[in-house]
Amino acid sequence: MTPSIILVRPQMGENIGAAARAMANFGLADMRLVAPRDGWPNPKASDMAGRALNIIDDAQLFDTTSAALAECSFVLATTSRERAMNLPVLEPRAAMAEMRARMARGEKCAILFGPERTGLENEEVILADAVVTIPVAPEYPSLNLAQAVVILGYEWLLSTAQQTENTVEPAAEKQMLEGLFGHLEQALDSVNFWRIPEKKEVMWRNIRAGLTRAGLTHQEIATWRGIVKALSSRAA
Amino acid sequence: MTPSIILVRPQMGENIGAAARAMANFGLADMRLVAPRDGWPNPKASDMAGRALNIIDDAQLFDTTSAALAECSFVLATTSRERAMNLPVLEPRAAMAEMRARMARGEKCAILFGPERTGLENEEVILADAVVTIPVAPEYPSLNLAQAVVILGYEWLLSTAQQTENTVEPAAEKQMLEGLFGHLEQALDSVNFWRIPEKKEVMWRNIRAGLTRAGLTHQEIATWRGIVKALSSRAA
Repeated sequence: MTPSIILVRPQMGENIGAAARAMANFGLADMRLVAPRDGWPNPKASDMAGRALNIIDDAQLFDTTSAALAECSFVLATTSRERAMNLPVLEPRAAMAEMRARMARGEKCAILFGPERTGLENEEVILADAVVTIPVAPEYPSLNLAQAVVILGYEWLLSTAQQTENTVEPAAEKQMLEGLFGHLEQALDSVNFWRIPEKKEVMWRNIRAGLTRAGLTHQEIATWRGIVKALSSRAA
Repeated sequence: MTPSIILVRPQMGENIGAAARAMANFGLADMRLVAPRDGWPNPKASDMAGRALNIIDDAQLFDTTSAALAECSFVLATTSRERAMNLPVLEPRAAMAEMRARMARGEKCAILFGPERTGLENEEVILADAVVTIPVAPEYPSLNLAQAVVILGYEWLLSTAQQTENTVEPAAEKQMLEGLFGHLEQALDSVNFWRIPEKKEVMWRNIRAGLTRAGLTHQEIATWRGIVKALSSRAA
């Protein structure tokens, strides 16, 4: 099993094809596309992919980023350090070691790559557990999409799982965590928790980030759903 | 100071431009071109370079690989492990650490990249001190030229000089070593050293490889020139 490479709203078909080649070079196979600008399938992507055409043919298409990573338990967002929100920031080497360790205990993993010019939106970054930042020269920091895939693919191939305690339970899949978030947000809305509406976005992002960092297990999420239910039925 | 990136007989202008961008991403500046297929300057290279155009504009042009690396003291050739001849084989991380250490003691360094399809010829590989091999998936090992520059640029940016004894004298420039080789080959020819002419190529390559590995200093090369001179005048 290898991590999923999720290209979010990619623009140029050529870049999707070049990303597929980079994936093949480093033994990655599972490409996922979220709302590619020029539709799908895209002949320019296939032309550029060369012998990595099978990755293009097998790529899965999604409407939203959260659907593309729903069954993953650990997700990295590639972005610059300045856009890391409240998430931990890892360099590629440490990030791939962490991913190896997660996969060794059975968690599905994915890496998010944003569109060519603008990168990932804040709402997409906060779906991740951590940010991975590729070190670049400050005078020329803009790395091409396929080049970013090259660096992470290369570090993935070189990585070995960090020593990890086998007592750690695997984190739940993102769709379970989203279920808890939806439930909690609704409960907080219903008690008028956000006194100043303009502050909700930032407050809610911070609440999400804290719970995401916790790496909650299935059992813990079930417990939290019970807590939210119990508290909100009392408030009603 | 940063290592020179020497593209040997590159074919596509687009790939030269993409290599320039990769160099800029990781803080490399000195590009050298050996006999580019489509001549020089090449508008396709400039178009692809984007904001790294200054690297294209400043690129130096050479007729031969040995001219391009004449003033370098330590040279790496990017090729596969199978084509390493008798040279040491390093992975990118170790190779860049070694290069940092060499540069810290004042040696000029360069990395050779071969043409897109065929890679470096044997005669070009043996001009180097060591081979650098990028780990790739065995099912899909063919790495694009610019992607290879990306990996080595990234490892260069991350590298720190290995602990190195300050007592080591810098190795001489390649043009001095070539002077010794020319002198020695002539001397060996004149005493009919190569009894079986077909074997000369491999024997000579091995002799060169041994002396290259030694990392001879200026003083040592001068001493060796004296030895060759003394022995061959006695033989005459």
